[in-house]
Amino acid sequence: MPDTFPTDPDCVFCRIVAGDIPCHRVYEDGHVLAFLDVGPLSRGHCLVIPKGHWETLDRVPGEVAAAIGAVLPRLARAVCAATGTAAYNVLQNNGAAANQAVMHVHFHIIPKFNGDGLQLAWNPQDLEDPEPLRDAIVAAMGEDGG
Amino acid sequence: MPDTFPTDPDCVFCRIVAGDIPCHRVYEDGHVLAFLDVGPLSRGHCLVIPKGHWETLDRVPGEVAAAIGAVLPRLARAVCAATGTAAYNVLQNNGAAANQAVMHVHFHIIPKFNGDGLQLAWNPQDLEDPEPLRDAIVAAMGEDGG
Repeated sequence: MPDTFPTDPDCVFCRIVAGDIPCHRVYEDGHVLAFLDVGPLSRGHCLVIPKGHWETLDRVPGEVAAAIGAVLPRLARAVCAATGTAAYNVLQNNGAAANQAVMHVHFHIIPKFNGDGLQLAWNPQDLEDPEPLRDAIVAAMGEDGG
Repeated sequence: MPDTFPTDPDCVFCRIVAGDIPCHRVYEDGHVLAFLDVGPLSRGHCLVIPKGHWETLDRVPGEVAAAIGAVLPRLARAVCAATGTAAYNVLQNNGAAANQAVMHVHFHIIPKFNGDGLQLAWNPQDLEDPEPLRDAIVAAMGEDGG
């Protein structure tokens, strides 16, 4: 259990972590809490969150992100076993422009049954001028202290 | 670097890992490879994959999933820095019914600009009869050896 992590008293997920708001908890460890989404896209829709308050994934410390990563396959297996499906989406939105509704990092695990669950539209483009883009991302990774 | 991991000679991502098919690589470590998606939904759209061949996230060993988890914030920061946005979606699809196109686990990092990127429809339902569902997921977590 980490000694401390950042919290926001106005954040609904921080209040769930603190136990001030109830949840249907399915998993908990020192870094991570998982519970049923109260507005599910399909039966078994769960949220996996860091206990600490970080608005977006890019702000999450590597150790915490690794802990979340390790939980995802375990909880995905359990959700599939409990709901009887093998298909599901994992989604994590960052920023209101990208459909983030609660400003505390959360990964959705959304089982897929017959047509319900997450609805996606996929409109791929051509990959134009990839080398400067690749170089810029690689440079930014190299300059990143985290 | 792991000594060995499962591979599938017919898998396009395994062939990229092996170097038989080129990619625009942005990150690599012992467990993880990341590269530009050749059919991007938006500029900067990257894929983060385990080097080993696992079809769906539920099959990925915890150590490998943790390694992917740790890379996601770093690469998200780099993609945001390189493309000049702060909004993005992380998406990982499991099963053809859930829009998985290549049957080798991959996380998408999809930057969001003005209206492009990932298009989602969100149709939440009421959470009905949560206790048996919660209990079944918790039981499945407990029975899981991984």
